[in-house]
Amino acid sequence: MKPRRVSVIGVGTTPYGLLEGQTLKSMAVAACVEAIRDAGIEKKQIQAFYLGNYISGMLMGQETLAPLIASSLGLNPEISSTKVEGACSSASIAFRQGYLMIASGLCNIVLVAGVEKMTTAPKEKVTASLSGSIDMETEGRTGLTFPGFWAMMAKRHMYEFGTTIEQIGMVTVKNHRNGSKNPRARFRNIITLDDVMNSRLVCDPLKIYDCCPNSDGASAAVLCSSSMAREFSEKAVEIIGSAQTTGYPTLFDMGQEIMLPATTMAANQAFKMAGVSRKDVDIVELHDCFSIAEIVDSEDLGFFKKGEGARAIEEGVTQLGGKLPINPSGGLMCKGHPVGATGLGQVYEVVKQLRGDHENQVKGAEIGVTHNAGGTGAVCTVHILRRK
Amino acid sequence: MKPRRVSVIGVGTTPYGLLEGQTLKSMAVAACVEAIRDAGIEKKQIQAFYLGNYISGMLMGQETLAPLIASSLGLNPEISSTKVEGACSSASIAFRQGYLMIASGLCNIVLVAGVEKMTTAPKEKVTASLSGSIDMETEGRTGLTFPGFWAMMAKRHMYEFGTTIEQIGMVTVKNHRNGSKNPRARFRNIITLDDVMNSRLVCDPLKIYDCCPNSDGASAAVLCSSSMAREFSEKAVEIIGSAQTTGYPTLFDMGQEIMLPATTMAANQAFKMAGVSRKDVDIVELHDCFSIAEIVDSEDLGFFKKGEGARAIEEGVTQLGGKLPINPSGGLMCKGHPVGATGLGQVYEVVKQLRGDHENQVKGAEIGVTHNAGGTGAVCTVHILRRK
Repeated sequence: MKPRRVSVIGVGTTPYGLLEGQTLKSMAVAACVEAIRDAGIEKKQIQAFYLGNYISGMLMGQETLAPLIASSLGLNPEISSTKVEGACSSASIAFRQGYLMIASGLCNIVLVAGVEKMTTAPKEKVTASLSGSIDMETEGRTGLTFPGFWAMMAKRHMYEFGTTIEQIGMVTVKNHRNGSKNPRARFRNIITLDDVMNSRLVCDPLKIYDCCPNSDGASAAVLCSSSMAREFSEKAVEIIGSAQTTGYPTLFDMGQEIMLPATTMAANQAFKMAGVSRKDVDIVELHDCFSIAEIVDSEDLGFFKKGEGARAIEEGVTQLGGKLPINPSGGLMCKGHPVGATGLGQVYEVVKQLRGDHENQVKGAEIGVTHNAGGTGAVCTVHILRRK
Repeated sequence: MKPRRVSVIGVGTTPYGLLEGQTLKSMAVAACVEAIRDAGIEKKQIQAFYLGNYISGMLMGQETLAPLIASSLGLNPEISSTKVEGACSSASIAFRQGYLMIASGLCNIVLVAGVEKMTTAPKEKVTASLSGSIDMETEGRTGLTFPGFWAMMAKRHMYEFGTTIEQIGMVTVKNHRNGSKNPRARFRNIITLDDVMNSRLVCDPLKIYDCCPNSDGASAAVLCSSSMAREFSEKAVEIIGSAQTTGYPTLFDMGQEIMLPATTMAANQAFKMAGVSRKDVDIVELHDCFSIAEIVDSEDLGFFKKGEGARAIEEGVTQLGGKLPINPSGGLMCKGHPVGATGLGQVYEVVKQLRGDHENQVKGAEIGVTHNAGGTGAVCTVHILRRK
C-alpha cells in the first residue's frame, strides 16, 4: 500500500523551563490550544489524539493522562485518546502514531502532544525515575544512570577517535549561543568554553554543562492529510520520512560504546522513505541530552563519518551559518529537556524554520530532520520534514 | 478508505495470579513465545510490536518496557516497539493499535502483548498506583479510589433500579463457578452467596468478594491480515469490530453514577462497524473489576436495558448455559486482574471459545465480544471477534 502524504498544519508549545504553578494538564492544554489555533481547525474535526509522556506516573502518581487531557481540552469523547511511552522519545512516538493514522487513510486530522513536569519533584527522585528506562533487571541494577552511560560513550569516543573534552564542550557553547535568542529556551545565557571546562564534574569526563537540564513543558502539533492541508493552512510542512526503531536497549546487547545502532537504523529507513540524501538537509534538531550525544548522534545519523563529529563542531560546520546547522533552537542542552515533550518541541522548531519565521532562521531552509532517542539505545525516531 | 480485514492467528498467556519468581520480562516473553508458536510464524516476520502496561513505572521503577521486551524476545531491532498506556485497558489498546496497523495496510503481521506485575509491591502502594488513573488534580485529591468509585455506582444503581446487594453478589458466585474450571484463573474455588455476603466490608456496599484480585500475568496475540491468515493458521479468528473511546474521565464530567458513557459509545461504534446486532453475540468477556461493574457494563454494552442487568444475573441469563454467557473465563473477578494484561487475556479467552476448545466451551460460539475499561470512565475499548 502506498501511504498517503501527511502534513503538519499547526504547532504549539509552552516555553521549556521551570514553569512554576503550571500542571501537566495546564501545559498540555496550552500547547494543544496553540496548535489547534495555528492550524485553523475546530476541535470537533480532530479524529484521534496521541499523547507522549514518560515520567508523570513515577514522579507524580498520575497516569492515564491522554483521556484526562483530551477531556480538559474538550475533545469529542467518542474519539480515542492514547498515551504512548518510549522514555525520552515519547513525544516523537506520539507524532509518528498520528502520522501513521493519517498515512493509512484511517483519519484525516489528528492531534498529537507531549508533556512533562519534572521540576517539582526532588532531584534524586527525578534521577531514579529517568533511570527507569534502563533495564532494571540487568544494567540498571548496577547503578547505571544516564550521565554514567554517556560518560562511557564519551570516554570510548575519546579513546577511539582522539575526540577531546574541549571539542565535546564546544557543543554546549554552540547550543547556548543558539538558545540565547530562543524565547522558548530555559537558558538564555551565552557561555564560554572556559565556563564549561571549569564547571562541576558530574561523571568523568562530563561536567554539569555537558548535561541538559530537566525541565517542564509541553508541545503539540496538528497533522492532516496533505491533500486536505491547503484548506487549513498556507504554512503546511510535509512529513516525507518517518521511522521508529527498537535498537539494542542495553550496553551488553550493543557490544560497543561509540554509536547507537537505533539511530542509524531509523535514519536509514527515514531517508530511504523520503528519497532525499543527507546533503539535501538544511537543518537538524537532534537529541543532545549530553554534549557528547550531539557528536555521536550527528555521526550515527549519517551526516559525518564515525569519529568525525567532533571535528565538525570544532570547524563550525554545525553552527548557525555553517554548512549543516544542528540544534539552532539551542537543543535539549540549552532549551531544556521535558522528556515526554521534547520530540514535539523539535518538530515545533523545525516547522518554524521551514516556514521561515524562526528566531535563528537558517536562510531558505527547505528540509529539516528531527532525531529523538529514548533509553540507553532502546528507542529512536527520525522524521524528515519538507517545506512545500 | 475501506480498512483491510484483520485476524488473530495466535494467542498466548501466562496463568494469572501470584507468580512468584516471575518478572515483567519473563512473563511477557512467555506469553509472546506461546502466541508466536500458536500462530506458526517466525519472529522475523513480525513488523511491529505494541505492548500494554499500566503500573510498572509506579510500582517497580521500570518503564520503556516495549523495547526491553522486544529485545529479550529477539525481535528485529529495525522494527518499532511501542508501549501504550490507558490504565486497565492498556492491553486492549495495544490490541487495537496492532489491528489498526494491519487494517491500514501498513503492516501484515503485528505482535501485541500486555503485562503486569502487582503482587510484590506493598498493597498500599498498589492501591495508590491504581488511583493514578483518577484525575489527581481534582477527584483523586479527595481520596477517591476504585472501590470508592464503584461503591458509589452500586449505591446509585440500587437506589435508581432497586438492584439488591444479593444480586450484585451473584456476579461473584457465577464468575467463581466459571473460573473454577479455568486453569489460567487465580482462584479455583467455588463460593456461595453466603460467602460473599459474610465477607469483609471494603467500601459500603462492596465486600472483599465484590472486588477483583490484583495479580501478575501477561497475555499476547499475533495479528495478521485476513487474506494472509490462512497461510499460517486454520484457527484464525477475525476482528470484525474495534473501537476505543475517551468518554468522561471524572464523575464530575459524567454527571451521573449509573453508567459509563465510554462503554456505550465504544459498543455502538464497534457493533456498527461489525454489522451485527447484540442478539448475534454468543459470548462476552467484560470488565468486571467489581461485581457491580459486570451489571453496569452489561447494560452499557447494550445487552440489557439500563436497570435490568441485575435481573439478568439473577435469572441465569448470563451464566454458562444461559442465553448470553458473560465471563465464562471467570472474569477479572475470579481469573484475576493484572491490569496491563487483562485486555489481551480477554482476547485469549474469546479466541479459545471461537476455536471451540475452551474449558467452559459455549457450544457453537461464533461471535464473541471483549470489553476493557480504564480509569473512572476514562477509556474504553470494545472488540468483536468472529469465527471464520
